[in-house]
Amino acid sequence: MIEQTEIETSVNNMSVTTQELYTAYCDIMQKAADLNNASAVLGWDQEVYMPPKSATMRARQLATLATEAHSLLTSEKLDTLLNQLAARNDLAEDQRTNVELSLKDLNKNKKLPAEFVDQLSRQTSECFNAWIDARKKNDFSVFAPSLAKMIELKKKQVEYYGYAGHPYNALLDDYEEGATVEILDRIFAGIRANLPPILHRIQQQQQVSDDCFHSYYPKQLQWDFSIDVLKHIGFDFEAGRQDYSEHPFTTSFSSADVRLTTRVDEFDFASMLWSCIHEGGHGLYEQGLPADQYGLPLGAAVSLGIHESQSRLWENCVGRGNEFWTFFYPRLQELFPEQLSMVTKADFVKAANRVTPSLIRTEADELTYHFHVMIRYEIEKGLIEGSLLPGEIPGKWNELYEHYLGVTPADDKTGALQDVHWSHGSFGYFPTYTLGSFYAAQFYAQAVAEVSGLEEQMAKGDFSLLLDWLREEVHMHGRKYNSERLCELITGKPLDPQYFISYITEKYQDIYSFC
Amino acid sequence: MIEQTEIETSVNNMSVTTQELYTAYCDIMQKAADLNNASAVLGWDQEVYMPPKSATMRARQLATLATEAHSLLTSEKLDTLLNQLAARNDLAEDQRTNVELSLKDLNKNKKLPAEFVDQLSRQTSECFNAWIDARKKNDFSVFAPSLAKMIELKKKQVEYYGYAGHPYNALLDDYEEGATVEILDRIFAGIRANLPPILHRIQQQQQVSDDCFHSYYPKQLQWDFSIDVLKHIGFDFEAGRQDYSEHPFTTSFSSADVRLTTRVDEFDFASMLWSCIHEGGHGLYEQGLPADQYGLPLGAAVSLGIHESQSRLWENCVGRGNEFWTFFYPRLQELFPEQLSMVTKADFVKAANRVTPSLIRTEADELTYHFHVMIRYEIEKGLIEGSLLPGEIPGKWNELYEHYLGVTPADDKTGALQDVHWSHGSFGYFPTYTLGSFYAAQFYAQAVAEVSGLEEQMAKGDFSLLLDWLREEVHMHGRKYNSERLCELITGKPLDPQYFISYITEKYQDIYSFC
Repeated sequence: MIEQTEIETSVNNMSVTTQELYTAYCDIMQKAADLNNASAVLGWDQEVYMPPKSATMRARQLATLATEAHSLLTSEKLDTLLNQLAARNDLAEDQRTNVELSLKDLNKNKKLPAEFVDQLSRQTSECFNAWIDARKKNDFSVFAPSLAKMIELKKKQVEYYGYAGHPYNALLDDYEEGATVEILDRIFAGIRANLPPILHRIQQQQQVSDDCFHSYYPKQLQWDFSIDVLKHIGFDFEAGRQDYSEHPFTTSFSSADVRLTTRVDEFDFASMLWSCIHEGGHGLYEQGLPADQYGLPLGAAVSLGIHESQSRLWENCVGRGNEFWTFFYPRLQELFPEQLSMVTKADFVKAANRVTPSLIRTEADELTYHFHVMIRYEIEKGLIEGSLLPGEIPGKWNELYEHYLGVTPADDKTGALQDVHWSHGSFGYFPTYTLGSFYAAQFYAQAVAEVSGLEEQMAKGDFSLLLDWLREEVHMHGRKYNSERLCELITGKPLDPQYFISYITEKYQDIYSFC
Repeated sequence: MIEQTEIETSVNNMSVTTQELYTAYCDIMQKAADLNNASAVLGWDQEVYMPPKSATMRARQLATLATEAHSLLTSEKLDTLLNQLAARNDLAEDQRTNVELSLKDLNKNKKLPAEFVDQLSRQTSECFNAWIDARKKNDFSVFAPSLAKMIELKKKQVEYYGYAGHPYNALLDDYEEGATVEILDRIFAGIRANLPPILHRIQQQQQVSDDCFHSYYPKQLQWDFSIDVLKHIGFDFEAGRQDYSEHPFTTSFSSADVRLTTRVDEFDFASMLWSCIHEGGHGLYEQGLPADQYGLPLGAAVSLGIHESQSRLWENCVGRGNEFWTFFYPRLQELFPEQLSMVTKADFVKAANRVTPSLIRTEADELTYHFHVMIRYEIEKGLIEGSLLPGEIPGKWNELYEHYLGVTPADDKTGALQDVHWSHGSFGYFPTYTLGSFYAAQFYAQAVAEVSGLEEQMAKGDFSLLLDWLREEVHMHGRKYNSERLCELITGKPLDPQYFISYITEKYQDIYSFC
């Protein structure tokens, strides 16, 4: 630990070396990372093991940690250090990247007053508990008052940040730097133009059955299979673990401690399966971030869109693919002989890729998934611009589901209460799922084109060629490049939705036998 | 959260009301409690779920939290507030108690520089991991270098604190205010005078068998029984939980979130049984502390001796007693028919109270237990005064075990590596176990004398009369009275070892049929 007086000396004394300044900067950043990672441990525990009566006290503990971290990350000391470092010309390239990104973050962070951060943290805990309670009671109105307070805070946050164009842009930028309503409106317009014709062609064909997922799959055996899959794709259980939670998520306390969660439905094997591979993909990214850049931008993920590209690449491009099941299907049949001995691998893979409009986003197929995202995107925009009130969400939700997917939720649990995000105050988060799918398709196409034998090796249960490629191309860079630049470096061009369209068209032509 | 400027105004402006000052004081204390409780969550996770590669990063995260909390608790701001509050004459009685105790703590805390606290926290994590590693390798020498560094830090701590008499007194005071080598030497002299004759008489009688504990007891069924016991004695699972760990312990993040751990040996039912009731007793105390005094002295436990009186009262006075098993034995027989249907309740209770010199402290009987403590006490005194070196511990350990108990460990795991305490830097902690037993015997005698029907009710599986009495007499006071004063208030006299001597004499006369 650096003494306060030493830092002050460093900051005020121009004779101090650049490396001394840089070390003082790292100390502050890493101390803040310690506090934020402690918050992450408390947050993980809150969703995984915490007893119910602890909710209020946990909320105040999380608020204190958030406030402390925020005050370090917006401190004058850090500000002075960063501005001095930015003026030095003898920083190594990586150091300069860290300093520049930190300065950018600082200027953004400074816009939120400490009391606001504290208030937001408390409201997040309360709102999460209200969501849990509302789900238990299957009643959105139990959640609405707490959510209304959260939205007021998010609007305040928008004002603090400032914005150009739509106010929602200010929130989007937190998750995906540079994303705007203008860009997303275009992308979703493209989805509205391109996906319905494919869905229409699929619906005219012989439908695929996924009955094989709905036999009785005992909890413990599902768990065992999930661990088997995670180990094979390369998740390091010496540097992470998996637990159960209400809603699957990934969190990380350093690249040496990455926590996944899953949930098991004994009558829906798909529920655990896809979320496990999905969270596994997030976890692999976190474990692959450079440990020596702990607490610094180069030790952090690029954006939620890129994070999601990793989970979706593993879940969809790999996990729903033929090669994956060439290896895993015999193992799965051995584990569940009664349920699967009469099901061929080809039928299982078809079931894994069944397309059907449905209610639950996390269980949606790769095609209709983007309608789920679009619905949330439209609702969030409305809430933030004030054209929609929290109490009106279930009505609006059901109307949009009917419109885009032709289905209507029977209750709130399968409707507007299904996702945890709003209870966390995460507005602007959902669109990154769609961006993630698009990046995933583009990256995966590149990997297959570039790495010879990649798919053959996967068919043998060895995923290391792919993981090594991702480590090299994506994980090891931390935030060195933004998503757009990273995509160009990896694939030679910016994000191009055509990769995703081609990928699913090809897949469904095969599954549903059309051309 | 109070703004820094508001606090400064409060402190510097005598026109500010006492209640405003008091609120500012509470805010600092509770913020420090939040950080310390966050540390406790990270510490719990470290011993219960953390993957191994996380050790180094967790150590630095814990160090940061400890340093932050320490800096709040030794801040000039708190100092000024407390001194101003102490000078006010319109504090409520409870508020005055909090202020006086906090001022005392502050003056002690201020003696440790922030870097030292940071260093100690890091060394604690490292030392704990070295201990885990050494236990795996069954080799004390793997632990010794890390322990040596820890002891150097403890000696430094002694110098920072200052002391009268023996340097070890400075460390004792951390766990049991007012305890000294002079007092403990007298108590242990009494043990050396009184316990061997009882042990001698027992050894001349027909020996008791505890074979019934060493059948095969499947892990899950042991776990189920432990939960059943904890629920019946009144542990609130809505405000706490139990998990597995290498070494059983209790930790608390507030009175609404108390975590117990246990371990299961499938061929030694006693191992889980006693530690479960023991930790349960600690947990009941933590759950009984006043929630509205969160972070303040009146919301904290008196001392380790009093904490231990609660665990031992439940483990020994209750859990090894006839009434407890009148209720639980039929349930236990039902759970383990194969193992216990041929064992009478009387023989089971005898087995539960079997006296035999042995190697493992946590599994020792109530009588020889105090020799285990005395051995550690003598070693600790030697390490702190420098007459014993860490590398010499196993030799000294084995020599003392031979001398006092007539047994010699075959290896380090059953010898000097058996306890976690030293790896945590907890020197001066062990003697509180003996004090705890003595307080437990004295409190329990009082409860039985005072509360009519208490034992009859326990025999029916209802422990609420006892728990309510403890809540009222001990738990609800927090640190209002020190241990000596609390003992006088409850029992009408100071700690008197004769209660313990009478209690075990009576018990063993019955079990071993002597008079």
